[in-house]
Amino acid sequence: MGFQEKLDVTTEKNNSLVCVGLDTDLRKVPKHLLNANEPLFMFNKEIIDATHDVVCAYKLNSAFYEATGAEGISELFLTCQYIKDSYPEIPIILDAKRADIGTTNLGYIEFAYDYLETDAITLNPYLGKEALQPFLVLKDKGSFILCRTSNPGAGELQDLLIEGMPLYKKIAHKVAREWNTNNNCMVVAGATYPQELAEVRRIVGEMTILSPGVGAQAGELTKSVQAGINSQKKGLLINSSRGIIYASSEKDFAHVARNETVKLQKNINSARNFSSAKL
Amino acid sequence: MGFQEKLDVTTEKNNSLVCVGLDTDLRKVPKHLLNANEPLFMFNKEIIDATHDVVCAYKLNSAFYEATGAEGISELFLTCQYIKDSYPEIPIILDAKRADIGTTNLGYIEFAYDYLETDAITLNPYLGKEALQPFLVLKDKGSFILCRTSNPGAGELQDLLIEGMPLYKKIAHKVAREWNTNNNCMVVAGATYPQELAEVRRIVGEMTILSPGVGAQAGELTKSVQAGINSQKKGLLINSSRGIIYASSEKDFAHVARNETVKLQKNINSARNFSSAKL
Repeated sequence: MGFQEKLDVTTEKNNSLVCVGLDTDLRKVPKHLLNANEPLFMFNKEIIDATHDVVCAYKLNSAFYEATGAEGISELFLTCQYIKDSYPEIPIILDAKRADIGTTNLGYIEFAYDYLETDAITLNPYLGKEALQPFLVLKDKGSFILCRTSNPGAGELQDLLIEGMPLYKKIAHKVAREWNTNNNCMVVAGATYPQELAEVRRIVGEMTILSPGVGAQAGELTKSVQAGINSQKKGLLINSSRGIIYASSEKDFAHVARNETVKLQKNINSARNFSSAKL
Repeated sequence: MGFQEKLDVTTEKNNSLVCVGLDTDLRKVPKHLLNANEPLFMFNKEIIDATHDVVCAYKLNSAFYEATGAEGISELFLTCQYIKDSYPEIPIILDAKRADIGTTNLGYIEFAYDYLETDAITLNPYLGKEALQPFLVLKDKGSFILCRTSNPGAGELQDLLIEGMPLYKKIAHKVAREWNTNNNCMVVAGATYPQELAEVRRIVGEMTILSPGVGAQAGELTKSVQAGINSQKKGLLINSSRGIIYASSEKDFAHVARNETVKLQKNINSARNFSSAKL
């Protein structure tokens, strides 16, 4: 199954638009796990087992695993293998925000798709379509292109006007109309900026949007959901990382993470159902 | 020693603006190395020993090491340790083109600076200064911001006009005037575009420029050198990767790589000396 198909199946089965971000940090995992051989993996395993039936996807941000070098990369590998073996219908997104010149990207592709066997990756658009082509030709793999990121300073470059249109909207247009020839492109637009998220939705039609920034980044959930869903009231992954996985730092962390995931799932579904028909 | 100081010392000592890119790929290393336990590291070690007195820096592109996962990252680690232990005055640039939101960048910082102990990193500007701040506050570490990349499709976004000014020049202005408060910013401008490289030089003053694209990417060397050097006929790293490290695929590869490095070093120095005073 390709990324979009897995996402559709799991979204439907679990009735969830929640993507749990496994931004797992040695300084934040419960103390009792620090004696384990693979504390990041052990932490992730418990979170995954506790949330697998209430999510639509998992997102793993490479930075948290690279932090400890080869050891961290091994634990990222173990986590991806665990998801694939235990819950093969759940798509895995590698949040790596990569972009290099054409052939160099092959190294990142081998990392994401041959080694980790994930289903999608986040990509930075700055080098252009030609550079990202090695990703874009992989029909079964999702390519999430950054449009409007969730950080406070996102607008410095992303709002610069190109013939009256902010750069992030220019990129959304390019992705929807020029880059998506294999029907595997998606975009990233932060939940912290509902207005910009709504603009991106207007431009990209039914395309899937990944929207980080709720929880620890404190987006206003209802506005973001209503701004981000497509005409079928889906096509949106609301990512929460720290707000879910670090909701408790005690032995009950996985149980509490599940409760937080369910709460987010329900709040999102309420917002979906209240929203009027769109587009 | 901070990055700029190491670079100045080594540039002077070796009379070289050549940065050798260790873009080491299992499919391209000589066959006799494939039986070694750590073929990427063994290859790099021979190249480093053969070229250490004719380079100004080494650049390691993370993608080539990530390709084989934790094993590749271990070999990247061994390579960085080898340079630091054997040739501590040579600065190491991690070519990773990273950018994430603020705190997530801490993972990449731990990877580049705590784990690998490199001296500089390449960064993508799309998320803005605020996102990159965790890198920019590290006074002793070089932050190379992408302005105009060397790939054929670089202009798709980088040449978009912001009030009449191409985006890459806008970014060069920002880096030189707003992002460089700790005097540790540098920029990337491909040798494949001498005219754009010259524009970047005009904007950033004496700032160090990393210029990839000669050799396998076939920039016109003399034009690029004259476009890229500062008023002291330096401030420029001309990177060559495949053109040097894969010049021979036989057992003599390190010897041939040295010869190619010396040839490039001499051609660059001829171009430096022929150029008239600048700025």
